[in-house]
Amino acid sequence: MKAEIICIGTELLLGQIVDTNAAFLAKELAGLGIDLYHKTTVGDNLERVAAALELAWSRSDLLILSGGLGPTQDDLTREGVARLLNEELEFNSEAWRQVEAYFRKVQRSIPESNRRQAMFPSSGKIIPNHLGTAPCMLVEKGRQRLIALPGVPLELKGVWELRVIPYLRQILMSENKQVLTSRVLKIVGIGEAALEEKIIDLIKSQSNPTIAPYADKGEVALRLTAKSGSETENNRLLGLMEEEIAQRVGEYIYGYNADNLEVVIGRLLKKAGWSLATAESCTGGLVAHRITNVPGSSEYYLGGVNCYSNSLKISVLGVSEATIREYGAVSEEASKAMVTGVRNLTGATVGLSVTGIAGPGGGSTQKSVGLVYLAVDIKGRIIVDKRIFPYDRIGNKEAAAQAVLSLLWKGLASKNSY
Amino acid sequence: MKAEIICIGTELLLGQIVDTNAAFLAKELAGLGIDLYHKTTVGDNLERVAAALELAWSRSDLLILSGGLGPTQDDLTREGVARLLNEELEFNSEAWRQVEAYFRKVQRSIPESNRRQAMFPSSGKIIPNHLGTAPCMLVEKGRQRLIALPGVPLELKGVWELRVIPYLRQILMSENKQVLTSRVLKIVGIGEAALEEKIIDLIKSQSNPTIAPYADKGEVALRLTAKSGSETENNRLLGLMEEEIAQRVGEYIYGYNADNLEVVIGRLLKKAGWSLATAESCTGGLVAHRITNVPGSSEYYLGGVNCYSNSLKISVLGVSEATIREYGAVSEEASKAMVTGVRNLTGATVGLSVTGIAGPGGGSTQKSVGLVYLAVDIKGRIIVDKRIFPYDRIGNKEAAAQAVLSLLWKGLASKNSY
Repeated sequence: MKAEIICIGTELLLGQIVDTNAAFLAKELAGLGIDLYHKTTVGDNLERVAAALELAWSRSDLLILSGGLGPTQDDLTREGVARLLNEELEFNSEAWRQVEAYFRKVQRSIPESNRRQAMFPSSGKIIPNHLGTAPCMLVEKGRQRLIALPGVPLELKGVWELRVIPYLRQILMSENKQVLTSRVLKIVGIGEAALEEKIIDLIKSQSNPTIAPYADKGEVALRLTAKSGSETENNRLLGLMEEEIAQRVGEYIYGYNADNLEVVIGRLLKKAGWSLATAESCTGGLVAHRITNVPGSSEYYLGGVNCYSNSLKISVLGVSEATIREYGAVSEEASKAMVTGVRNLTGATVGLSVTGIAGPGGGSTQKSVGLVYLAVDIKGRIIVDKRIFPYDRIGNKEAAAQAVLSLLWKGLASKNSY
Repeated sequence: MKAEIICIGTELLLGQIVDTNAAFLAKELAGLGIDLYHKTTVGDNLERVAAALELAWSRSDLLILSGGLGPTQDDLTREGVARLLNEELEFNSEAWRQVEAYFRKVQRSIPESNRRQAMFPSSGKIIPNHLGTAPCMLVEKGRQRLIALPGVPLELKGVWELRVIPYLRQILMSENKQVLTSRVLKIVGIGEAALEEKIIDLIKSQSNPTIAPYADKGEVALRLTAKSGSETENNRLLGLMEEEIAQRVGEYIYGYNADNLEVVIGRLLKKAGWSLATAESCTGGLVAHRITNVPGSSEYYLGGVNCYSNSLKISVLGVSEATIREYGAVSEEASKAMVTGVRNLTGATVGLSVTGIAGPGGGSTQKSVGLVYLAVDIKGRIIVDKRIFPYDRIGNKEAAAQAVLSLLWKGLASKNSY
């Protein structure tokens, strides 16, 4: 089954709204093993809506529409579908009863304009919407199907989960004998190109599981996707391939699927029963923010100091004035003194520190914008790293935060030596 | 000029990434007054990339592409454009020099696969990318233009701002006689619906400038757009309308255009010659991160303490054990003690503090998840606020950070009383 997503709404073309519906639907389709080849967005214009639907109908089996089911003049999905099918819009009394029921439920009277929401193409079937006024629509023509959902994300998700998933599952079961299973390997410490070089033969020769690398901020995700008659067989195939990959780049694999560095770090700290503290200069709190995004991080994260000024580095963290005078606040020596200082201050088992020049100002010929020193202290054993990032201020902060978390993960993962 | 956006990348069709590039580009095009009728997403498949480009080229004047410029086998934008133009890919030595320069700058050696990034269709011109390895591409054929940008959002934005905007402005100036000028009023402390009610007559009656409110996280932006023969006339029209609006909701307007709370706060602090320190519990560093996102924030931001554990609140900030025992760490009393403590610790003129329950755990019948206490201390005068947010963990952190910055702005803006 080849699917296609069509989002309808001028607000999406004005950039006032980030289109989370499309990403949600794409992920859901991937999870169901339905191939998605196209996503299209058109404004509230009948000609263009109809043209987009015709093109999609000519090349895909399953059209998922989002938006344009509201009561106003610029909600044109019903008209567009009618034109695609060469049908008239008819007043659908069942749809109308649902609109009425919704307004009764929220104890409001129905504006006359809502009658538009009950006008359906003659072969359109109703998918009930328990979360809003807009009844949704299903069209079935042979092996081709069209599903029109509301643009409001909450309603779209609700109807998708309650109505659409069971419907699609049933079709898949009767049409396919095959199941799809994915596993994402999360990789840090090696670039996308270098990683691909190491496994290019696997990527090129393997069709089951398929292997697809993609770069995210400061890390790489490797998606393996297996297809067979059963989930068990898929997991066996995925396991074999993962082993093969791990033999070549295993030292860089830090997690799976929805894992990120802060989640995995939290897991390792909890397992070891260790606590963590942070000393951030140029990242200014971003590392702590990421760490505390993890639910339950209060179990191991004691807190930290954003020692933005030199005076705080000295007075709160106990970095010596001599260190700053001799080596500068952006130096390996300062990063070490900061991480030792924050462990002393908080009593944490593990500390990390970042000091650098985020830019745009503050650079010099010896120390350029983007220069960062990172340190991790695990029970007194300190590892340091020096990096130079080429981004703007916020990009450099993000890259430095990612790099120090990466260093911390490496330290914790090899903690047998501690 | 009719524009069209084409995003290229299988990861977008798998829903692993929300497509923020498309929304960014759409907003930018709207700001330039360029009509956008279609947004399309295709995967890393040469047939489908080429087909999408051909369709777009047949109906639009300006194609903006995002993604597929990387070094790996599945980066197919260069091939797709070559096919569209019926041209061969050639090794472009200028592009290669830029790739080399990038790797030199970050002090890494170049993997062989990066040579792919220097293969350009013969009529493709290079747009330099100062933020990454992928040189960008410009194609001009009569009145039609194609601009290929990287998929990494940071790089896309950077190249857009530095290279593409000036290019498009020049074309617009030579082609159009009408100029479009926008001014965005940034508003905090009043909701979108309440704001709209106060100016609904202006929104409905005005066509020049047009007025469009849109809600962002914890604030509202009001975009005024004027159209006339000259920028001067536009600015006159915008000034008149802004005055009219300010008479009704002036107390909530904190800034303009790209301003955000942390930028405006920085401006006010610099003007007063005051310094700032932060004490964050539930936001875990996010407030400090936002403050230090502003270039030059080291002039007024001394630093702060992420006092995530009670022990740090007591040992570093000097919150008394009795306060925590009697009122709890999430209380007005604790927020006040924290802000006083961080001012004492750092010697800052101004302090802020946040303490709350981000969730999902940690709530109780007396204190629910989402409860937050905020405090601002300006030279010893403390203002506090209590809020309850309904979001998930990260949403609550973001809302709390926005709320305390909003409280700080209000305090600083009315600082005549200090």
